[in-house]
Amino acid sequence: MTHPLLKKKGFILDVDGVVCRGRRPIEEGVEAVKKLKDMGKKIVFVSNNSTRSRRMFVERFSGFGLEVEEDEIVLATYATASFIGRERRGARVFTTGEEGLVEELELGGLKVVDYEDAEYLVVGSNRNVDYGLMTKALRLCLRGARYVATNPDRIFPGEDGPIPGTGMIIGALYWMTGRLPDVVVGKPSRVIMEEALKMLGLRPEEVVVVGDQVEIDVRAGKRIGAETLLVLSGVTREEDLNGIHLKPDYVLRHLGELFD
Amino acid sequence: MTHPLLKKKGFILDVDGVVCRGRRPIEEGVEAVKKLKDMGKKIVFVSNNSTRSRRMFVERFSGFGLEVEEDEIVLATYATASFIGRERRGARVFTTGEEGLVEELELGGLKVVDYEDAEYLVVGSNRNVDYGLMTKALRLCLRGARYVATNPDRIFPGEDGPIPGTGMIIGALYWMTGRLPDVVVGKPSRVIMEEALKMLGLRPEEVVVVGDQVEIDVRAGKRIGAETLLVLSGVTREEDLNGIHLKPDYVLRHLGELFD
Repeated sequence: MTHPLLKKKGFILDVDGVVCRGRRPIEEGVEAVKKLKDMGKKIVFVSNNSTRSRRMFVERFSGFGLEVEEDEIVLATYATASFIGRERRGARVFTTGEEGLVEELELGGLKVVDYEDAEYLVVGSNRNVDYGLMTKALRLCLRGARYVATNPDRIFPGEDGPIPGTGMIIGALYWMTGRLPDVVVGKPSRVIMEEALKMLGLRPEEVVVVGDQVEIDVRAGKRIGAETLLVLSGVTREEDLNGIHLKPDYVLRHLGELFD
Repeated sequence: MTHPLLKKKGFILDVDGVVCRGRRPIEEGVEAVKKLKDMGKKIVFVSNNSTRSRRMFVERFSGFGLEVEEDEIVLATYATASFIGRERRGARVFTTGEEGLVEELELGGLKVVDYEDAEYLVVGSNRNVDYGLMTKALRLCLRGARYVATNPDRIFPGEDGPIPGTGMIIGALYWMTGRLPDVVVGKPSRVIMEEALKMLGLRPEEVVVVGDQVEIDVRAGKRIGAETLLVLSGVTREEDLNGIHLKPDYVLRHLGELFD
């Protein structure tokens, strides 16, 4: 019997916990994506990653044996550039973020400038964050610049333990200035999900949103009114399902079970 | 007519805004302290500074022509070490702070260790803060270590604009973990004020608490039940006084007006 989700035209897929764990591929997930593409399904990967560009993701996927085009990837970096570009074409932005974010902001036609000249404060995670960078973000925030955060993630699972996400900078600025971002782009925000729908050219009822985290992926799917599939190949375990009040439409151990 | 505060036996003095502005002395403040000492008054300087040791302050005062002993200075660095030492003698502590804080923690008999071995997380400002340091603080915070902050200050006036205070790290950790410090040592906390009273060997009614900030100095004075003197030689201006609901007992333009 064919899984009912295989009737959907489009698949909005989370990356980490669905097709890989950090740098290691999840074989069942990778194979399932290949089958979906062979069936002619439209695919878009959506990730809250705020430090890498789409180009970097194409290379990573290629390492998993997965051929993916840049226009099949919506990252928080790219979606942030796209969102700001629609709000104010060619805007002058200062960012706390890394190279990957800078790359996408510039590809989006924005001018990446120092904080004195910026109209926008773009907060993204940065593993080279320092006091000088935080001082600039603080001053721009106090000055009342439009404040956009790539994603809301507070903590990430690092290779040897938890590491700070973009939320570290959001929290620091909030405590110092009382300001939260005017716009958060990454999941579970509608902003990045609408970018994904636009890229697919599909309506919410034609797609399924797939991910490994209830509060991020399932919530994001429900926000746009799409059906949702939670996979247990990432951070959520079967025993976690009892406590949740936000129920996904489907739960599978991994994406490959679509074809069992 | 002699000013009524000159009947007090002890003076608990803020540093910045009372005897100096950053590295520049406030002449009236410096001269007034000399006169108070000549009169045999007991003096203690109390500062929320979380990056310097008392030794460093003695040197700074000396540059103003003011002879001050280490036991006339209570800094947030020293008071933090003293507080933890009373709670757990020889405790193993990890700190986000700078050299000055490390110096005082070690003088207080504490063992400054890496985060894996620490019983205490001591958060203090650090102009060399980076992602690795924040990762360590995050993990220790998540592990449930006793969490002490040197001071609550969110923003400081830097030489060319506002700069982040210890609150930057407190806010980042709060956003990531939901935890606030178990104990905050610096003003307006009672912890540092009781340290100052102990050093003077006086009761609250025998001292006056002097400072340039209502929410920090005046509040700290009221918390221990001492009379308070707000001086307008720092960040508070005369026109700010209308809006405040926490009234100091006395207001003077600068400390020198005690002798006018």
